[in-house]
Amino acid sequence: MSAETPPVVASPAAFAELLELVERGELARLPELVGGMHPSDIADLLASVPEEAHQLQVLKALPTEIASETLAEMEEDEDRAELLTALSARRGAALLHELADDDAADLLGELEPRDRDRMLAALPSEEAGEIRELLRYGEETAGGLMTTSLVSVSTAAGAAEAIVEIRVQGREVEDFYTVFVVDGRGRLRGTVPLDDLILADPDDTVESLVVPAAATVTPDTDQEEVGRVMGRYNLVSIPVVNDEGSLLGRITFDDVIDVIEAETTEDILKLAGVSDEEELKAGWIESVRSRLPWLVLNLVTAAAAASVILSFEDLISEITFLAFLMPVIAALGGNTGTQALAVTIRRIAVGDGLQTGRFQVVGKEVLVGLLNGFVLGFCFALFAYVREGDPRIGLVVLLAMWANIVVAGFAGAMIPTVLKRLGADPAVASSVFVHTLTDLVGFVMVLSLAAGLLL
Amino acid sequence: MSAETPPVVASPAAFAELLELVERGELARLPELVGGMHPSDIADLLASVPEEAHQLQVLKALPTEIASETLAEMEEDEDRAELLTALSARRGAALLHELADDDAADLLGELEPRDRDRMLAALPSEEAGEIRELLRYGEETAGGLMTTSLVSVSTAAGAAEAIVEIRVQGREVEDFYTVFVVDGRGRLRGTVPLDDLILADPDDTVESLVVPAAATVTPDTDQEEVGRVMGRYNLVSIPVVNDEGSLLGRITFDDVIDVIEAETTEDILKLAGVSDEEELKAGWIESVRSRLPWLVLNLVTAAAAASVILSFEDLISEITFLAFLMPVIAALGGNTGTQALAVTIRRIAVGDGLQTGRFQVVGKEVLVGLLNGFVLGFCFALFAYVREGDPRIGLVVLLAMWANIVVAGFAGAMIPTVLKRLGADPAVASSVFVHTLTDLVGFVMVLSLAAGLLL
Repeated sequence: MSAETPPVVASPAAFAELLELVERGELARLPELVGGMHPSDIADLLASVPEEAHQLQVLKALPTEIASETLAEMEEDEDRAELLTALSARRGAALLHELADDDAADLLGELEPRDRDRMLAALPSEEAGEIRELLRYGEETAGGLMTTSLVSVSTAAGAAEAIVEIRVQGREVEDFYTVFVVDGRGRLRGTVPLDDLILADPDDTVESLVVPAAATVTPDTDQEEVGRVMGRYNLVSIPVVNDEGSLLGRITFDDVIDVIEAETTEDILKLAGVSDEEELKAGWIESVRSRLPWLVLNLVTAAAAASVILSFEDLISEITFLAFLMPVIAALGGNTGTQALAVTIRRIAVGDGLQTGRFQVVGKEVLVGLLNGFVLGFCFALFAYVREGDPRIGLVVLLAMWANIVVAGFAGAMIPTVLKRLGADPAVASSVFVHTLTDLVGFVMVLSLAAGLLL
Repeated sequence: MSAETPPVVASPAAFAELLELVERGELARLPELVGGMHPSDIADLLASVPEEAHQLQVLKALPTEIASETLAEMEEDEDRAELLTALSARRGAALLHELADDDAADLLGELEPRDRDRMLAALPSEEAGEIRELLRYGEETAGGLMTTSLVSVSTAAGAAEAIVEIRVQGREVEDFYTVFVVDGRGRLRGTVPLDDLILADPDDTVESLVVPAAATVTPDTDQEEVGRVMGRYNLVSIPVVNDEGSLLGRITFDDVIDVIEAETTEDILKLAGVSDEEELKAGWIESVRSRLPWLVLNLVTAAAAASVILSFEDLISEITFLAFLMPVIAALGGNTGTQALAVTIRRIAVGDGLQTGRFQVVGKEVLVGLLNGFVLGFCFALFAYVREGDPRIGLVVLLAMWANIVVAGFAGAMIPTVLKRLGADPAVASSVFVHTLTDLVGFVMVLSLAAGLLL
């Protein structure tokens, strides 16, 4: 493609054409339609075909190497497992055979155990064994992300010998990026830059050219940590080693981009009270299942916090203005808490090397709350005083709003920090804690101050 | 480093040692301390030194090539601009000279115009000219991210000739990853895989080996879009071309990881009502400035929504239970709205190729709201009925909660979708709209139903 012709991407027009081919049963023309397309684009087209039977027809009509990459590029929530399951073991194994072992393992991991075994049985036994190894690791760990397909040379090799070796291995390994160096016992010693090898004296040993790895991970390292390390050191690939330092595999930057996206989606959704199991493209029943428990929890906590109001019914009956004040003061506390929560959770997620000053953040949020709370409290107090004509109402409003906003800043920064310290996920349930607290403080402050100052 | 010795990273111990060196004035020993460290780690250490005068001493004591990378790895909010400004033009230019042009431009872009010119004047004029070119592009565009340092060969070159050329250029270009192919007029024709070149007949032309680029961007492409395209097509680097198709530069995956992190931080903070200008490590005054305007807006909208309560003071005085019901029903509406908002905004951010079914999301959220609203409304209605002993109160609660939750789902999905359609940022201000609406609907439904059914 020259720069004049833009890349062919999945477009509504291409989609319409695809549907037409399906309806007319002219799927033989399919390879022509998707000819210049990237598997990611074909995956989008395929995922948009409404009926699974038609999706399956399309998948079967694609050449094996394109069909396999298309499946690999589909999302888990786009029913790729169902498509793979619907294929014969022979056809399924042929597709899996085309894929890198980590992609094959990801796909197989989504199948029912019975279907997984059926496919694995149809693969060459060595390949099946490698994939089984990968399937042992947790999905969200370095082991679950890594591929065992990599290029490595021995420290003992000479430069010329190493170049020949790299050329041979490189033909089998897609996008190898980095040449790893291992010692005689398979332990990682570092990497060797290709240009250093080329420029070196042919008899120089790799040993003399090896550059230490900037970082390594072990198979059980959490994927979020893998993303953080690779982003921090700008690594295009990172070696995975076991406790003895043996090189097991590598993780490349493209997996990490997916991880960072998935992890931030998770953080945003958790902060909003959506279960991290809800896929973005989930159907409505799955969404109800994922969100209802959190809403029920919120109903209980919100009602519990508001139940303090039930003890002051006489007061409210006398000063109905309080029924107006309370939800406003509670809402502003909630908003302040959300701000502090979001900043703190994001700070924790992005992380820094030293992890210093975690609790300083709490002090800062309290300071911010003291100032913001005073400004908001003063404005709202002025309004209340002007409307009700009683300076004591103004004082109630000022003190209640101010206190609630300081508490909100404190809790919004403290709760995720403590959860993190305890080894728990800082995002989960933080917001229900904070909002219950700000509701409660808002109501109690308004009502008790009013009872004390106005009656 | 062998695999037995873990990589040296910034640790509290290393930090303590650094501070000791600073205090004793033994900075000559600094290169020894940071010897095996990655510039990212040194940057963290440097950023943690409390006094700027001491930071400057440390920076000056580092060898030029390490000092330059350390500055490049510091964050914008870690005062790296101040440090660079405090250096002499000669020393500053020496540091900038060591950096890739995109990193140098990023650093210079943070300086005051006068200091920027001072540094540029001290650089070789060709280099200064290239950096000035890059400074013309917006900071959050492809032009602002790209480096002009790349490896390219001509379509007309033979394979053997191309390999020589790549070897020469590759010595100057850090991490080139991809060999770009341009025609006689400098227009991008694609890329050429290194192994194809090596395996090719030495007289084969590059023309016969060129692979079309999976995607290209122009200098004004938004950085978020660059990240999306590179993530989608798993690209380690992407070419930047102008409207005529001429190759201007390239963007590498490490910049994109930073962009994805920055953009998601922005989305989370905006959703929480924190200005996207607030840096995560902002001081408390900056935080007050960034958050107070939004809180004031919220105070106004929350008070406006709640002011409907002021028209029903007689009703509340008679049925004080309503003062308990209203904040709970408003809060649950708010929570439902936040869930729908977070899922919708994240869907928009992650994007998909076809962008189909944007408005289907709204339909789905309404369905989810119908079901969740009924369950929550029913539970809360039962509680209200049991407590107050009046089935009509139960009916008020059921209808008000149900309606509010359906509205919340609808608004939470609709508002960001419409904002996106209008070309606006879907995250900004969405949550204040949604919460004002759910407050208002909650209060109005409770009060008007109570007035109609209970009086």
